[in-house]
Amino acid sequence: MTKSVCVVGLGSMGYGAAASLVRAGFDVTGVDLRADVLKRFSDEGGTGQTSPANGAANTDVLLIFVVNSVQAEDVLFGENGAVKSLNPGALVCLCTTVPPAYSEELEGRLKKSELLFLDAPVSGGPAKAATGEMTIMASGSPDAFGLAKDCFDAIATKVYELGDKAGAGSKFKMINQLLAGSHIALAAEAMALAIKSDLDPAMVYEVICNSAGSSWMFQNRVPHILEDDYSPRSAVNIWIKDLGIVRDTAKQLGAELPMSSTALGMFEQAVAEGLGGEDDAAVFKIVAEKLGLK
Amino acid sequence: MTKSVCVVGLGSMGYGAAASLVRAGFDVTGVDLRADVLKRFSDEGGTGQTSPANGAANTDVLLIFVVNSVQAEDVLFGENGAVKSLNPGALVCLCTTVPPAYSEELEGRLKKSELLFLDAPVSGGPAKAATGEMTIMASGSPDAFGLAKDCFDAIATKVYELGDKAGAGSKFKMINQLLAGSHIALAAEAMALAIKSDLDPAMVYEVICNSAGSSWMFQNRVPHILEDDYSPRSAVNIWIKDLGIVRDTAKQLGAELPMSSTALGMFEQAVAEGLGGEDDAAVFKIVAEKLGLK
Repeated sequence: MTKSVCVVGLGSMGYGAAASLVRAGFDVTGVDLRADVLKRFSDEGGTGQTSPANGAANTDVLLIFVVNSVQAEDVLFGENGAVKSLNPGALVCLCTTVPPAYSEELEGRLKKSELLFLDAPVSGGPAKAATGEMTIMASGSPDAFGLAKDCFDAIATKVYELGDKAGAGSKFKMINQLLAGSHIALAAEAMALAIKSDLDPAMVYEVICNSAGSSWMFQNRVPHILEDDYSPRSAVNIWIKDLGIVRDTAKQLGAELPMSSTALGMFEQAVAEGLGGEDDAAVFKIVAEKLGLK
Repeated sequence: MTKSVCVVGLGSMGYGAAASLVRAGFDVTGVDLRADVLKRFSDEGGTGQTSPANGAANTDVLLIFVVNSVQAEDVLFGENGAVKSLNPGALVCLCTTVPPAYSEELEGRLKKSELLFLDAPVSGGPAKAATGEMTIMASGSPDAFGLAKDCFDAIATKVYELGDKAGAGSKFKMINQLLAGSHIALAAEAMALAIKSDLDPAMVYEVICNSAGSSWMFQNRVPHILEDDYSPRSAVNIWIKDLGIVRDTAKQLGAELPMSSTALGMFEQAVAEGLGGEDDAAVFKIVAEKLGLK
């Protein structure tokens, strides 16, 4: 059984994964720059580190939960990068949502250092991460899956094995994000029109949740609008990145994607109005403002 | 108990309602122009009529299931309109999706003829209609709801009472259609990008149905794309009407609705390419064509 794991990036998803691994009996090093987060993690039985190189020394599995591909690149190949200290045969799992092309390329680069790789973006949100119930959309070699199995059992209830090469995992995640982000923008648009039409927002929520207009995101995010609570569980900025990956990938494929590019435009406008750090349901404010709602 | 009911418009939803009423023991007259449909209905125990005026004579409840407000207007006030033959105190239920403003106005016009009115659009699709399990989003006077109760029990499993004036029912339906139609366009866009990205479409369907990117429409319509079966269960043309209602209502309210107007544009393009009579999932062909898929 894999015993030593390093988790880089103790944000809401990474922290949940790291804490789940501790609970499952793994020897876990958490890497983050924030002292308070490392303190909390060591109180829960983990070891804190600020340098990926130090955290990855003598570890069997490295799980990366940073924000984007730029950070992932630095975690692996930067001045204090993990690649230089990982033992040959160790496994790198990239759980960050990145462009599929980046993940495809990374597999080859790590192979040169005799490292295994899984393209393994996750979903499910912070609450599921905290309880070890994430969903993982993974692709990579059978050997890589073999090494990852014990860790995945500890952090996820659903692991999709989506192929034997890196890239597929990130593509599935990209399709999910195309839908999820656009559904948030749509939920905001629908609620704004409902309120402008003098409908009772709570009743709209109940009726739609039980009708053909429902979506996972409508059910999950509209309560934030109803409670006027935009403390970030998932921030507007996330969608600039994730719908940006959709747009860039589509562009490379010569694809025109009218719906998701419209949604990206709404999130971009939210950022322009200073809402980037708020909960993603705050895209509602953009539509509401145009309708002259409070 | 209400015993005599007239159902105008024996399309997939209206026929389901009429047949459910026959099974529940009502004396049901079905009005339609198609002889084969009337024959089938009389074989199931109903009475067929081609004129709304004849069908509505001596009936307690008139249920209207025609395609749009223009047809509803003709059913009620045209040359062979039902209003002239309905007894005072009878109930008119408009189950067609119409502009909320039309329904609001209709309530007052019918009141002048001493008729009760329910603004009562339905949802759930043909399969649920056939088994008497529709959802009804209704608003109107308590007296109107009282008269409708037995009929609604026979045709629906969920009746939302959304207020004591006409208009609210249609507004709720409009919000549902904004989301539902846009989710179909999004499902098409996501599947086109997935296929263009060389993902297995059936696997994408399975993963997304279990992820945060899911929607009721994604779950319901993507199988039509996977099976390449565009025989119309709900046609592209329906969304020209229903998203058109959204657009027109939004315009009157001074609202800008980026997502649903983009979806309407995609359905309009599908109609322009001759797909108006196909299943609404055929909007996939529009996106797929742009990506150069088969």
